Amino acid sequence: MSIQYVLEIIGTFSFAISGALAVRDQKHQDWFSATFTAFISSIGGGTLRDILLDSYPLVWVRDIAIIYAIVAGVITTFVFYRYLIRLRKTLFFFDTWGIALFTIVGTEKALHLGVRPEIAAIMGVFSAVMGGVIRDVMTNEIPIIYRKEVYATACLAGACCYLLLDKVGVERNTAFIAASLVIIVLRILAVRYQWSVPRFFR
Amino acid sequence: MSIQYVLEIIGTFSFAISGALAVRDQKHQDWFSATFTAFISSIGGGTLRDILLDSYPLVWVRDIAIIYAIVAGVITTFVFYRYLIRLRKTLFFFDTWGIALFTIVGTEKALHLGVRPEIAAIMGVFSAVMGGVIRDVMTNEIPIIYRKEVYATACLAGACCYLLLDKVGVERNTAFIAASLVIIVLRILAVRYQWSVPRFFR
Amino acid sequence: MSIQYVLEIIGTFSFAISGALAVRDQKHQDWFSATFTAFISSIGGGTLRDILLDSYPLVWVRDIAIIYAIVAGVITTFVFYRYLIRLRKTLFFFDTWGIALFTIVGTEKALHLGVRPEIAAIMGVFSAVMGGVIRDVMTNEIPIIYRKEVYATACLAGACCYLLLDKVGVERNTAFIAASLVIIVLRILAVRYQWSVPRFFR
Repeated sequence: MSIQYVLEIIGTFSFAISGALAVRDQKHQDWFSATFTAFISSIGGGTLRDILLDSYPLVWVRDIAIIYAIVAGVITTFVFYRYLIRLRKTLFFFDTWGIALFTIVGTEKALHLGVRPEIAAIMGVFSAVMGGVIRDVMTNEIPIIYRKEVYATACLAGACCYLLLDKVGVERNTAFIAASLVIIVLRILAVRYQWSVPRFFR
Repeated sequence: MSIQYVLEIIGTFSFAISGALAVRDQKHQDWFSATFTAFISSIGGGTLRDILLDSYPLVWVRDIAIIYAIVAGVITTFVFYRYLIRLRKTLFFFDTWGIALFTIVGTEKALHLGVRPEIAAIMGVFSAVMGGVIRDVMTNEIPIIYRKEVYATACLAGACCYLLLDKVGVERNTAFIAASLVIIVLRILAVRYQWSVPRFFR
Repeated sequence: MSIQYVLEIIGTFSFAISGALAVRDQKHQDWFSATFTAFISSIGGGTLRDILLDSYPLVWVRDIAIIYAIVAGVITTFVFYRYLIRLRKTLFFFDTWGIALFTIVGTEKALHLGVRPEIAAIMGVFSAVMGGVIRDVMTNEIPIIYRKEVYATACLAGACCYLLLDKVGVERNTAFIAASLVIIVLRILAVRYQWSVPRFFR
């Protein structure tokens, strides 16, 4: 059991928590919709990436631990939600950690499947953000892509950083950690100093 | 021509009717949008299942009868819609029959493709409800997953029942009928006695 | 480099422009969301078609020129947008040209993959309109399918025309041009004389 695998399970678990919490604002929410939303949020991005790259079987179809990590996230949310919503900062770090991890894992996987770096970067960003986009579209929220936060852009920066370090021959684990830190630090700074991506139309 | 095939065609036909009826509440509706919506509602769930399981060619790409069943459903809706909307109960039974059938057929197909029972249950539920979810997202409705009815949960119960009966060695046709009945009876009782799935957040 | 390839690049470029322009009405828009929306609008339809037909690798995964055409479209929109929005007619012609091209290329590709003509027509229409539908769903717009314009219906007419000409043995380039013209002329006439597809429910 590699460290990366453990990290992926933790990422899935924390995405499931943020997914389950997202049904709070729905007019009607129940156990099914919370579990369903947690599931879509966690596996949506990676599933889209693997479908686009024709990489089968899908991770969660092959490895039941992913499903159990999601169920654990849902139960954790149910038991501790009063506590969790007071822990906004903790949640923010969990989510930020999740997108950092998913971006680099996704970029790496795409590279290994032999696509060009530009495509690998797109796949990394998709892995991290598309689960949330699908969740937002389904729950009639404005997708995170169209909100003010620096979110997907931080992922893109991290993916590009990883590709650059990989290109110049930096050892894989170092590149992994450095690129993840780029995403995490960028996002924290962006929230702290209210950075935003330059407007497209003035 | 097996009985199961005939049932699938009937399920597709009845899903097409409920899909075409869904455009009534759109600001603008025409022949194209009605047919398109009927098509998405009917084939959406099964198509998603087959893409997730890498099972190609897709049923409706291979078997043109599916397309004709959808067209027949659209024309039936056009000709009889005044009559159909008075027949709410009939429609409810058609739809309930459709989701029961699609759930068990989907679960079975996934099992045959060699996935674990947990994944097969997810695929069964997806087959039954994701067509409707995609339709709702496209027509700006709140997806059926986030409404009060016991809908997807009944499908999940039926899928689990099928898997259980299959595991203990019950003969396939018996398991099929018993699990379908679980879904149909659960949904009828839920509507009759206004059951709902327990809330996730109190 | 065939003429068809050049046309596809132009089609992608013009779809990227209309995608980037679509973020103007979003509450928040930035460089990332404009590029993302342009990307989804341009490749969404063809990607869905190829996933449904199990045709891998996807065009834009294999051919980086597609990505560069999208980036060029985004930059063009940024530089010239004040000019572009005054050029409504020019944009309309670009978009109409785009859907005509994508419809026939999509129909042709599906035919070559060996599906029946009915399925090929569906794939042609999907290639042309589903990128826009996904974009509209993501940006909380009413999908173009549910608007009054004759849009997808013109594509369907063009696809059927191509299939008919192909069936009676008309030479490929002639069929391509004739069918594209059907779509372009139909759409122009529809806008000019305010044609609309007959309502489904009276």
